[in-house]
Amino acid sequence: MTLKVGVIGTGAIGQEHIARLHGKLAGSRVVAVNDIDERAARAASVRLCPGASVHKSAQALIDDPSVDAVVVTSWGPSHEEFVLASIASGKPVFCEKPLATTAEACRRIVEAEMARGRHLVQVGFMRRYDPGYRMLKETITSGAIGAPLMLHCAHRNPTVPAHYVGDMGITDTFIHEIDVLRWLIDDDYVSAQVIKPRRTRHAPGTLEDPYLVLLQTREGVVIDTEVFVNCQFGYDIQCQVVGEDGTASLPEPASVPLRRASQASRAILMDWKLRFIDSYDVELQEWIEATAAGRVTGPTAWDGYFAAVTSDACVEAKSTGRIVPIRAMDKPGFYM
Amino acid sequence: MTLKVGVIGTGAIGQEHIARLHGKLAGSRVVAVNDIDERAARAASVRLCPGASVHKSAQALIDDPSVDAVVVTSWGPSHEEFVLASIASGKPVFCEKPLATTAEACRRIVEAEMARGRHLVQVGFMRRYDPGYRMLKETITSGAIGAPLMLHCAHRNPTVPAHYVGDMGITDTFIHEIDVLRWLIDDDYVSAQVIKPRRTRHAPGTLEDPYLVLLQTREGVVIDTEVFVNCQFGYDIQCQVVGEDGTASLPEPASVPLRRASQASRAILMDWKLRFIDSYDVELQEWIEATAAGRVTGPTAWDGYFAAVTSDACVEAKSTGRIVPIRAMDKPGFYM
Amino acid sequence: MTLKVGVIGTGAIGQEHIARLHGKLAGSRVVAVNDIDERAARAASVRLCPGASVHKSAQALIDDPSVDAVVVTSWGPSHEEFVLASIASGKPVFCEKPLATTAEACRRIVEAEMARGRHLVQVGFMRRYDPGYRMLKETITSGAIGAPLMLHCAHRNPTVPAHYVGDMGITDTFIHEIDVLRWLIDDDYVSAQVIKPRRTRHAPGTLEDPYLVLLQTREGVVIDTEVFVNCQFGYDIQCQVVGEDGTASLPEPASVPLRRASQASRAILMDWKLRFIDSYDVELQEWIEATAAGRVTGPTAWDGYFAAVTSDACVEAKSTGRIVPIRAMDKPGFYM
Amino acid sequence: MTLKVGVIGTGAIGQEHIARLHGKLAGSRVVAVNDIDERAARAASVRLCPGASVHKSAQALIDDPSVDAVVVTSWGPSHEEFVLASIASGKPVFCEKPLATTAEACRRIVEAEMARGRHLVQVGFMRRYDPGYRMLKETITSGAIGAPLMLHCAHRNPTVPAHYVGDMGITDTFIHEIDVLRWLIDDDYVSAQVIKPRRTRHAPGTLEDPYLVLLQTREGVVIDTEVFVNCQFGYDIQCQVVGEDGTASLPEPASVPLRRASQASRAILMDWKLRFIDSYDVELQEWIEATAAGRVTGPTAWDGYFAAVTSDACVEAKSTGRIVPIRAMDKPGFYM
Repeated sequence: MTLKVGVIGTGAIGQEHIARLHGKLAGSRVVAVNDIDERAARAASVRLCPGASVHKSAQALIDDPSVDAVVVTSWGPSHEEFVLASIASGKPVFCEKPLATTAEACRRIVEAEMARGRHLVQVGFMRRYDPGYRMLKETITSGAIGAPLMLHCAHRNPTVPAHYVGDMGITDTFIHEIDVLRWLIDDDYVSAQVIKPRRTRHAPGTLEDPYLVLLQTREGVVIDTEVFVNCQFGYDIQCQVVGEDGTASLPEPASVPLRRASQASRAILMDWKLRFIDSYDVELQEWIEATAAGRVTGPTAWDGYFAAVTSDACVEAKSTGRIVPIRAMDKPGFYM
Repeated sequence: MTLKVGVIGTGAIGQEHIARLHGKLAGSRVVAVNDIDERAARAASVRLCPGASVHKSAQALIDDPSVDAVVVTSWGPSHEEFVLASIASGKPVFCEKPLATTAEACRRIVEAEMARGRHLVQVGFMRRYDPGYRMLKETITSGAIGAPLMLHCAHRNPTVPAHYVGDMGITDTFIHEIDVLRWLIDDDYVSAQVIKPRRTRHAPGTLEDPYLVLLQTREGVVIDTEVFVNCQFGYDIQCQVVGEDGTASLPEPASVPLRRASQASRAILMDWKLRFIDSYDVELQEWIEATAAGRVTGPTAWDGYFAAVTSDACVEAKSTGRIVPIRAMDKPGFYM
Repeated sequence: MTLKVGVIGTGAIGQEHIARLHGKLAGSRVVAVNDIDERAARAASVRLCPGASVHKSAQALIDDPSVDAVVVTSWGPSHEEFVLASIASGKPVFCEKPLATTAEACRRIVEAEMARGRHLVQVGFMRRYDPGYRMLKETITSGAIGAPLMLHCAHRNPTVPAHYVGDMGITDTFIHEIDVLRWLIDDDYVSAQVIKPRRTRHAPGTLEDPYLVLLQTREGVVIDTEVFVNCQFGYDIQCQVVGEDGTASLPEPASVPLRRASQASRAILMDWKLRFIDSYDVELQEWIEATAAGRVTGPTAWDGYFAAVTSDACVEAKSTGRIVPIRAMDKPGFYM
Repeated sequence: MTLKVGVIGTGAIGQEHIARLHGKLAGSRVVAVNDIDERAARAASVRLCPGASVHKSAQALIDDPSVDAVVVTSWGPSHEEFVLASIASGKPVFCEKPLATTAEACRRIVEAEMARGRHLVQVGFMRRYDPGYRMLKETITSGAIGAPLMLHCAHRNPTVPAHYVGDMGITDTFIHEIDVLRWLIDDDYVSAQVIKPRRTRHAPGTLEDPYLVLLQTREGVVIDTEVFVNCQFGYDIQCQVVGEDGTASLPEPASVPLRRASQASRAILMDWKLRFIDSYDVELQEWIEATAAGRVTGPTAWDGYFAAVTSDACVEAKSTGRIVPIRAMDKPGFYM
């Protein structure tokens, strides 16, 4: 059986997902596309999934009976509408992060999905599909290091472009840790604090960079994460879990050990696109298989909502300097 | 376009390749199978590629006009016959290693392919598709370490089964280094020597284990490889290239750094199947694409022949203790 | 010239220092000892520095004209008195940490030394003499990683004895980081915060363990340190400095890389005594030489005072959960 | 008790040893010096051991009743004479490597020492005092990796000066491995082979560089060592012992882990003098203590002799390309 997918939004990430779903992964085909720019949608179709219908509206695509499942890769502010429409039509929907641009909007999606009574929504947090994080989670689950007590993390980019401003260090960068660390230790956050060291001279404009984000969980785990997006030296993702009996760390990406010019060295990736590139394939392959089986096995609407609530608290903590409680609605039984 | 493949030999590796070609990779389908045990072929077909024809003979499969390309995963001694028949029918053929069981047989295949005048044959040396070896080759090619002078390698297995005897350390184990190291440094071997240390007490029966194989190349590179198949501690593949300006090594497989019980440690794989498992996917995916494009981009019949000649010399060196010249026919222009 | 030393306090660390000053290092001799337990002093003298005078009081030892310099290794609460007496007599004095048990007492020592008008006091913070910290400081000073912005540290012990209670995690354990990190980045602290994760089940009695101490410096550097004294797995000291252009870390102690039993591993020290054992030799050798030259080159009374003020703030931060300002007197020109 | 030492030869290494024995280590004093250039001896005395007698001849120094023990750091060809004279006078003698310039001369020393009936001679092979090699030996002795089967070693220098020619790769460079590896695995060599890859373009003049030296031991251990003295990138000493149950390697020298400029790196030493610099202190401190106790605990005359015999065989193997047996006299009971 082949899953027939409709893709809303044919920008960069949309085109990548079309290529995966139509040409690279097994078990799916892209049968319909839509974009706010119809010519862009048509061009993507011709190049990547010839024969797919090009719909004039997202709603038309969602309503197309030949579409089994929807992928939303449009502009963030449009996510809520398209995800709600997919739920209304009873079709499974994979929505790139963020699920919606506010916690309230995410909550409306959660409530719509519960009202519909079926799991339909998956959010595109791809780090859960990275083999390194998966190995690390297995190690924790195995009990090898005992119960987690602390996590020491870092999210470093060599540089950011001029349009990276304001709270994007939280909403675009740290948001990945927000999702993947909850999943990693199977816990929820209760408070956030942000501490700002002196700015690096490499920070462009008025961007505050770096800072240290502190999260505390329901189980009492303390997580410190360095967010440093102009660190110059590389795209460098670190995660060490300190447990009652030992520590376990995220594996470094494979690289060739060199000895030359009085140094023993290994290359650090400079391009973030390469770090988790394979995870997108795994993510969508598993989504295809779960969707075909009528299930959602990846990050749910609830995860998208919880990430939004946490992100909001971090933004407030960053601007106020205070320890901010993270107040989500109670987790509904539907998502247990 | 979908490449329609016929698979001869439906044992373990045959079934794995069918699963890849039919269900996992893009651009191919298995349309025919054959095995000396027809019931096994039928069972594999039902389970892995329903609808594929089950042919009574390999020749019938090769002759089947719906078969675009042949995969030979039968018993080693049958490889020569099936590869020659594929060449005779003008069909591309992927043959698992060894290409044939003697250098003479490999030579007959080389000559048949040249006589046919088209590149058709690829041999299943999958290490060339390992991301680690590829990174290492890129590093060498980049000039970062200068011209290679020496290679220090190790091929270690935790243990071997009772049926692993005689010269299998060369013909089944070191054969992988024979192929991949030539490719890595783009050079050919001119002599072989084998030095035997004391036997490990863990060597079963009369098996000689470990030993050190020394190869010298046309360009004067000296390669030492420890072959140790009862090393107990893991499946451990090492390769360090020493160049005029530095050294570069094969990356270790990713693993979780742990600190516990007074040790900083990382797991070493115990199961060789896991070490290069992803390489098979890459190998066949590239074969599908090259075959569809009418080309052979992987290990050729010449590579299979050269590996056989080298392996013979190593076996002789091991039994005589002498430095044995490696005398291959001159490389035909066809394979340049 | 040989520096003639009098040692006050002949307990464990006192005996070790006598052995160093009398038998192992060059340029010094122990000519007098004193202990509150005169028999212990006599026994130490007989065993470690035969011929040394055994004085009935610390004051008598300080007054002994054959004593060039004083080493104070007595019980902490007695340090202030003996250091002040040494200053009064104009004799150089090396005092094991803490300089005194309260910040006020340390301040009295600072003021007495300034009143005397000569640098006489050195405090026994030995980590500044560790080759690893010295290499790290050289790297920072070289500019290789740019200006420091953040430090990520850990101070881990496998277990602590039953008498380790209350705030000893600050006053006995973290006190080492308090001194060495100031020295490392040549900066002072302005505030402290302590965050408590869930307790490890291995924490004895009511001991709070682990916690995260956050310090902020005058230059805006943020330092997080995990203090975890029942981590089970080893005595593990970590320090990573994040600068504007890169990161630099404390070297790990040398250990034999092993491959066995499906693990690549290195031993982690279990005994804290071994981690910085060589630093004591370097510390006292440099003290001997500086003292003979009439100088103080190690941690000063001011450093001892600043450590006490910082430690007090950390203790308050730990009990209140608040961010506590660190309010030291202004640094006198005498110590610049 | 203080050991009164006479030093013959006040060149570079002589001066370093005088500084150690007179100013840095405990338990010794230099009371007499001699050099073929009397003014050099006088200058060294004034600067490093004021008050020491300056003898007109080595024999006079040896005969000086105030000299308890002799250190020979003169020109290699003079070693035999001075060591024999020390033996004749019954005085302990520490002789820098080589013990003598030919195996025959070494044998004469061995026989003279046996005839004298007392252990007097120690040879200056300092690697046995390196903490890394000692840790590695402890690991082997502990049984953690089972019986040794193979050793993979490398001795790399960044470059060599113009006067480094001919067989110095064996006699000056590999000679260190010859001694330390025998000690490491407590075994003796029975044959040598040298394999020459293509020359590096960085090899000066007609120097053959690099090469691979293969040694086989009485117990059947096979040792391969890369000798590469113009490797450009650093002074790099490697040793991996492969045992029946695992492998153990020489620790790398401590260095600061850096992340900068898209690389994770550590410095490699460029200056060989720094690599084993501390070993000289340990070596002489232990020699002082053993000599004071009337014993020889370091490398003996026999070790010096065995190194010479092995070195000769390696030189022959290098020039002939053959596997050369190592034929030492039977080890006398005196040295067991």
